[in-house]
Amino acid sequence: MQPSLRPAPVRIVIIGAGFGGLYAARRLAGTTADVTLIDRENHHLFQPLLYQVATAALSSSDIATPIRSVFARFPNIRVVMGEATGIDAVARTVAVRDTGDFPYDILVLATGASTSWFGHDEWAKASIGLKSLEDAETIRRRVLGAFEWAESRRDPVEVDRLMTFVVVGGGPTGVELAGSIAELARSTLARDFRHIKAAEARVILCDAGPRLLASFPEPLSRYAASRLQRLGVELRLNAAVEQVTDDGITAAGERIDSATVLWAAGVAAQPAAAWIGIKPGPHGTLPVAADLSVPGYPEIFAIGDVMTRPGPDGKPLPGLATVAKQQGRYVGALIAGRIRGRQPSSPFRYRDWGSLAIIGRSAAVAEFGRIRLKGTSAWLTWGAVHLTLLMGMRNRAVVYVTWIWSWLTWGRGARLIIGSRYPATTLFRETVGANAAQEH
Amino acid sequence: MQPSLRPAPVRIVIIGAGFGGLYAARRLAGTTADVTLIDRENHHLFQPLLYQVATAALSSSDIATPIRSVFARFPNIRVVMGEATGIDAVARTVAVRDTGDFPYDILVLATGASTSWFGHDEWAKASIGLKSLEDAETIRRRVLGAFEWAESRRDPVEVDRLMTFVVVGGGPTGVELAGSIAELARSTLARDFRHIKAAEARVILCDAGPRLLASFPEPLSRYAASRLQRLGVELRLNAAVEQVTDDGITAAGERIDSATVLWAAGVAAQPAAAWIGIKPGPHGTLPVAADLSVPGYPEIFAIGDVMTRPGPDGKPLPGLATVAKQQGRYVGALIAGRIRGRQPSSPFRYRDWGSLAIIGRSAAVAEFGRIRLKGTSAWLTWGAVHLTLLMGMRNRAVVYVTWIWSWLTWGRGARLIIGSRYPATTLFRETVGANAAQEH
Repeated sequence: MQPSLRPAPVRIVIIGAGFGGLYAARRLAGTTADVTLIDRENHHLFQPLLYQVATAALSSSDIATPIRSVFARFPNIRVVMGEATGIDAVARTVAVRDTGDFPYDILVLATGASTSWFGHDEWAKASIGLKSLEDAETIRRRVLGAFEWAESRRDPVEVDRLMTFVVVGGGPTGVELAGSIAELARSTLARDFRHIKAAEARVILCDAGPRLLASFPEPLSRYAASRLQRLGVELRLNAAVEQVTDDGITAAGERIDSATVLWAAGVAAQPAAAWIGIKPGPHGTLPVAADLSVPGYPEIFAIGDVMTRPGPDGKPLPGLATVAKQQGRYVGALIAGRIRGRQPSSPFRYRDWGSLAIIGRSAAVAEFGRIRLKGTSAWLTWGAVHLTLLMGMRNRAVVYVTWIWSWLTWGRGARLIIGSRYPATTLFRETVGANAAQEH
Repeated sequence: MQPSLRPAPVRIVIIGAGFGGLYAARRLAGTTADVTLIDRENHHLFQPLLYQVATAALSSSDIATPIRSVFARFPNIRVVMGEATGIDAVARTVAVRDTGDFPYDILVLATGASTSWFGHDEWAKASIGLKSLEDAETIRRRVLGAFEWAESRRDPVEVDRLMTFVVVGGGPTGVELAGSIAELARSTLARDFRHIKAAEARVILCDAGPRLLASFPEPLSRYAASRLQRLGVELRLNAAVEQVTDDGITAAGERIDSATVLWAAGVAAQPAAAWIGIKPGPHGTLPVAADLSVPGYPEIFAIGDVMTRPGPDGKPLPGLATVAKQQGRYVGALIAGRIRGRQPSSPFRYRDWGSLAIIGRSAAVAEFGRIRLKGTSAWLTWGAVHLTLLMGMRNRAVVYVTWIWSWLTWGRGARLIIGSRYPATTLFRETVGANAAQEH
């Protein structure tokens, strides 16, 4: 390299390629900044459809985009696949496991949130969260495997436990999972088995609060509850979980035997606050200033699920993809302006486009300001919005084809159990034993 | 159950739901037979496209069909997901691991073949075969992970080893894998990395024999070799492998350092011959009579890759999907006839529809009797034939969309590394160490 007369480019490190980090990097693509985008995975994930991978409706590749392919045309964006393990805010470097340290002039923390079991490590081992493609494929394998295993068991207590699915958490993810598993059992799998009656599988949705979808207006919560009940989902409201084990849960004093417990009850921010040595806000989040910078560190920004900031209504901004995207774009533009010596821009302002939640076939709820939709209209809106937001024409086309096909046939295209051929030994250690296939 | 005056239905057990077993069961669907179809997996796999899953062109769900969904409408077909571990040919029962014994009146062995390392267990640990979706997803993770890992390494020896891919075996699978990895590196990944030059990755194809695609006429072998070389694949012919380790191979005296060795060199029949106690034919196959029954056991049939039988030309029938399908249909019809008291049918006659092998974009070879095709015409034929043979409208539509998209964009839709976030610790144990990302 020969010495250059031009100033060295500003080094920007972005940790996390979820909605926040990806949109910040996109805004900086093609500028003079030298951007390093670090993520543990090689793909950006469209999380709103993750539950469809978990319940065999879509494939992992339908909702994921390789991060490198997004930025292939932009030489100023370098993608690093690795796990950030800490920040030295004085030396201004980010440590990446097994790779080394990356120096920055400006740092964007977009590390998101992970599943939280509220400190109960043993609950984490006995249930499955839904944050990554790996989680989703694990849920798919476990749910489909439970039916397979129930089919070849004879002990009625064991069969009942295998045919009982518990979802903890009545937010959008819990509602989506419970509705989707109930539809899988009652429609797709109903005719597939000869011994068990798949349609009689129990799906139980627990929440500690008094109603589902607490962030929506109450009439829409009531609608969601009644639609789930029509699908056969049993609701347990005001039922705080007291114990989670390999073979079931206890909630509000009631014991429920289940081989499959899915955990959609809590998230916590990734440990960025601890990295900087700042007192975290609720759920480990980083409180940020009006320009999304971390107080005391004008060169560090935090966006998306990792930050906390009051919204226009005074309540903290919700952990939604749209918040992260808008913040990513805002911070990207702010940094691009700063590089060109522009005055600081106006503070971040969240634009609320509304919220949507899906319950099942022809059943969803939507709230756009004063407009509230439910049923088929909300469901069609949900589909159109998600197809539009999905990244990449191929993914859009494949998801569209798959949805139309599923709607026509009630089928699910991704009903695969991969990577654990023997449910007896790998899926359900404790259930090997009493069997009498001789009776066949 | 009240006693019935009708005779008990004939119990037919089919082991394996590959092309042979699946088509035998299909022929018997809706008859009076009581059919049990046993497979280790929950899905039927369209193996001819498996290499496209391994090289990130397709998703697992695009080429797999849940076995239960194929037979949902037919109450006389029971599907059992489990591993057959043995046969008692006197008591006429099949043992299934962790499930029990299944009695039969007629048994169809369609257990197929698995990858064979010719007895070298240590080679099996150091390389990856391609027989199941799990294999394909492992190859995909390892190949994509090797590029990711090379990008963050600085030791040139280590980078070279990570950027060298060895494929052992010059049959159709080896040719497909080598061509597809070379195209992945030179087209799809070429602009994605900043440190390594993905397009300079080495892909080396070894075969012990003097030419590729030995079952094709020699001009087509020559064409395949020259097309692979144009893609940048290095050929090593007459190069028998002498050693395979975690960090490379030795073939014909030459040492090749490589972090990724793919094994497409040999298959052996699953141990059905040992189960019955019969002296196996070549590669552990079961020799069968003209009606595909096992000599001495008129109630046991063997079809597909597990059997051996001379073809019309005197040579053993090839291990092709079409052979297995034709045999499955034949045995299904024979059994259906026997149940209705019909005379034994005529012997099995293989109808050779020709063979196809694909090398890369616009490059394939085809042989239909005296007609030989190569290049774009063979490639388009290959695509049309495989789309037609693929099972299920959804899979066909999705594969069609994906192929068109890939052709237009040179992209691959399934470039996902799932299930091993840290290549350092899980993919390449031995390569942790020297690194200098500080130089970034």
